[in-house]
Amino acid sequence: MNTNKISYNKYLAEIIGALLLVLVVALSGSGLSVIIFAAIAYAFIVYLFGEVSGAHANPAFTIAAWTMKKIKWQDALLYICAQLIGAGIALIILKNITGFQFTNINAIDGLTIWAILKSEIIGTAIFAMAFAAALHGKATKSNVGLVLGFGLFFGLLFANMAGGVGVLNPAVAIGANLLNWATIVGPIIGALIGAWLYRFIVLGNLCGCGTACDSTCGCGFCHKNKAMNNEPSPEVIVVEEVDVLN
Amino acid sequence: MNTNKISYNKYLAEIIGALLLVLVVALSGSGLSVIIFAAIAYAFIVYLFGEVSGAHANPAFTIAAWTMKKIKWQDALLYICAQLIGAGIALIILKNITGFQFTNINAIDGLTIWAILKSEIIGTAIFAMAFAAALHGKATKSNVGLVLGFGLFFGLLFANMAGGVGVLNPAVAIGANLLNWATIVGPIIGALIGAWLYRFIVLGNLCGCGTACDSTCGCGFCHKNKAMNNEPSPEVIVVEEVDVLN
Amino acid sequence: MNTNKISYNKYLAEIIGALLLVLVVALSGSGLSVIIFAAIAYAFIVYLFGEVSGAHANPAFTIAAWTMKKIKWQDALLYICAQLIGAGIALIILKNITGFQFTNINAIDGLTIWAILKSEIIGTAIFAMAFAAALHGKATKSNVGLVLGFGLFFGLLFANMAGGVGVLNPAVAIGANLLNWATIVGPIIGALIGAWLYRFIVLGNLCGCGTACDSTCGCGFCHKNKAMNNEPSPEVIVVEEVDVLN
Amino acid sequence: MNTNKISYNKYLAEIIGALLLVLVVALSGSGLSVIIFAAIAYAFIVYLFGEVSGAHANPAFTIAAWTMKKIKWQDALLYICAQLIGAGIALIILKNITGFQFTNINAIDGLTIWAILKSEIIGTAIFAMAFAAALHGKATKSNVGLVLGFGLFFGLLFANMAGGVGVLNPAVAIGANLLNWATIVGPIIGALIGAWLYRFIVLGNLCGCGTACDSTCGCGFCHKNKAMNNEPSPEVIVVEEVDVLN
Repeated sequence: MNTNKISYNKYLAEIIGALLLVLVVALSGSGLSVIIFAAIAYAFIVYLFGEVSGAHANPAFTIAAWTMKKIKWQDALLYICAQLIGAGIALIILKNITGFQFTNINAIDGLTIWAILKSEIIGTAIFAMAFAAALHGKATKSNVGLVLGFGLFFGLLFANMAGGVGVLNPAVAIGANLLNWATIVGPIIGALIGAWLYRFIVLGNLCGCGTACDSTCGCGFCHKNKAMNNEPSPEVIVVEEVDVLN
Repeated sequence: MNTNKISYNKYLAEIIGALLLVLVVALSGSGLSVIIFAAIAYAFIVYLFGEVSGAHANPAFTIAAWTMKKIKWQDALLYICAQLIGAGIALIILKNITGFQFTNINAIDGLTIWAILKSEIIGTAIFAMAFAAALHGKATKSNVGLVLGFGLFFGLLFANMAGGVGVLNPAVAIGANLLNWATIVGPIIGALIGAWLYRFIVLGNLCGCGTACDSTCGCGFCHKNKAMNNEPSPEVIVVEEVDVLN
Repeated sequence: MNTNKISYNKYLAEIIGALLLVLVVALSGSGLSVIIFAAIAYAFIVYLFGEVSGAHANPAFTIAAWTMKKIKWQDALLYICAQLIGAGIALIILKNITGFQFTNINAIDGLTIWAILKSEIIGTAIFAMAFAAALHGKATKSNVGLVLGFGLFFGLLFANMAGGVGVLNPAVAIGANLLNWATIVGPIIGALIGAWLYRFIVLGNLCGCGTACDSTCGCGFCHKNKAMNNEPSPEVIVVEEVDVLN
Repeated sequence: MNTNKISYNKYLAEIIGALLLVLVVALSGSGLSVIIFAAIAYAFIVYLFGEVSGAHANPAFTIAAWTMKKIKWQDALLYICAQLIGAGIALIILKNITGFQFTNINAIDGLTIWAILKSEIIGTAIFAMAFAAALHGKATKSNVGLVLGFGLFFGLLFANMAGGVGVLNPAVAIGANLLNWATIVGPIIGALIGAWLYRFIVLGNLCGCGTACDSTCGCGFCHKNKAMNNEPSPEVIVVEEVDVLN
């Protein structure tokens, strides 16, 4: 991971992740099936690419991760570009290749902008709590896909209940022709609310460095330390060689 | 965890957990879909907040945990307040915001009080065995949400089979307008039966400190020791001190 | 586990496991729903009681485990008694308490005895491979319920495809009024085939002690060693501190 | 595992794996049910036989694993033979035993060869990413079946969306009477694309030995080292032998 030369593969992971997600959402029809299929698809993407790029596959998540200093702004920018490229490829595939049925294209037509915005914010806030759990190392390698899949399922369910269509992802909104300022802005607002709320609940503060540090030295000190590493390495036990030469 | 200053975040976790659970139950319609959605929702809440507050989200569970000395009475009281606040917020949201369809409101209308009480006790007893499994460290961080989700699924299924509606949670009963003395008392009785039965089966006694301690020194000694910590740390690596004094 | 006094709790686990399983099968209706509900119920029972009794909840499995020397004959006998007691309690509950709908009672009426026997053997053989995987420590604490749930799902599916009703469990056959000599004998034959086939495939021999031992010293030596313990303890690593003071 | 005498059991695992998979696909009807049943069946096979043979159960995967030097050509050949034997047994069972309903037999009749080939390549490429994840140790023992089950579910879903029937497995194509050159060639092409793409994304190169090695010494050196072992043993704790002889 600590290589500087070949770091472009994580952008490739983001392209493919967004591409697959858009195709699933665009092709899965409507109602409960699209919710279940999208959730399984995202769980699958997380298991495949979680270790490579974090498997954001969502510009709103990338922005939230950047505000939490979990990703550098240069990387965040490239992640978003990669996600949009993936969505663009999906859009080209969907518009040109016959044999695909493009079902969701008008799903947001009958809705007011406020209904869309409200449901996108609520749904993404719930979904982003799962993302923040993974981001703060609160999910295991075995269950991380499941947790994020449940998060997307649950977020989409609430977005539907709240009267919207439930995209929760600006890249998917673009790729699946569900574009609207509300499907861009809504997820970003929701992701920021959900991710920061989760951090506050789980860590007891907004600094992202645990309660012990915060109570003694505040956020400033906390940010200087490397306590915010994305995936805490599970302390490999190394028993040092003892040379008894005498 | 051993911080005294910022412990209010766990109450926030309980508020949000109860809030989400009430909304799912109130909005998921009826039949099998509400059972599946509620189970996934609770699994999700457990994965998100299990490490923070234990993710009770249920006054009946909090009472059972208190009777097992897994939570102090002050905390138990504040947990229940938090859960009721969450349910109250859900009730306000459900009654005031249009766009939500409040479907379960009359689900218990056609039932006798005895049918409700019986099904609440049976269903919660089954559900509470899963909760007790988590409480006694018999679930892993990877599967705890799954186990409790299965528990709620299975408990709701049995409550339905027994002729009731299946709430299994006094906070949800209040928030989802399924209030009735049987939906308050039933889950509490069920949770006590299920949790204590599970402890007896798994530990071989009612003391909560393992069979080895019990057979030699009884419950009194057991309670004085700190053998009842909520999540037993998996201390596998024991470095034995070897004194080479020659 | 190494207590002699209070070992009766594992029989209680078997009673409750069989009881719940019978109730689910008897009350879940027919078709795919009973398959899914039974699979989830068994996964749940395994997560709850797997560490206590192995969560057999099935006389056919207990017999298979006994032939593999994973359980003593005295224990095996008491396990089967416990499972039958659980099934009997379920039968009493189902016949006496109104409010339960006893749906599966005539499910095997239209079938020939050969169709039942064939489908019970095939289905239980598949299911028993999952049980043997758990018995030989090839499932983790996190996934053991899932693996056995998949096994029951898959076994019931095949039993249905093979033209039978799919009980795969003599205790359930008794408790759910699906009794027939074929639903008693079939699962036992199937369990023996599936469990021994799995052992042969995974260990490369029928001795149950790994290929290394077998190739050098044969089965006789293998059985004398304690290599067949039910749940292999995950080799606690003890790093000895070496003080080199001289 | 390092035994030379009794290595034929892994071929038996491949026979049974392919046999079960063919039966499920041939007997599960059409539409979403066959997708879900096949995915659960494969997850189950992976949990049962993953440690024995890698649970390929698919000639296309065996070929992909061979091109990645994860399996010797002699073994690869015997694996494919075993998978075809399993499919052949399934075919005999399906054609001769009454009580089975052979539903999928004409599923590819109405499709053009190009539609089949396209959908097989797309579907298997997605599925093979999950297989490659397991092959490179990116799945845990707890979640490997889930990840591969999700992969098959997702691959079949995309193959269906792309206008094909979705077999993704030449052995299943033969056993389930879905034979066609496109259902043989398509999965092989797809598996090579998916597996190598995944390796490139996760390792940052095509050598299969991690980025660190690649950036300093290139693929040649990498292949000579034993860095490509099938399942990297998680050797974290290294206790060095200390000889205190004086």
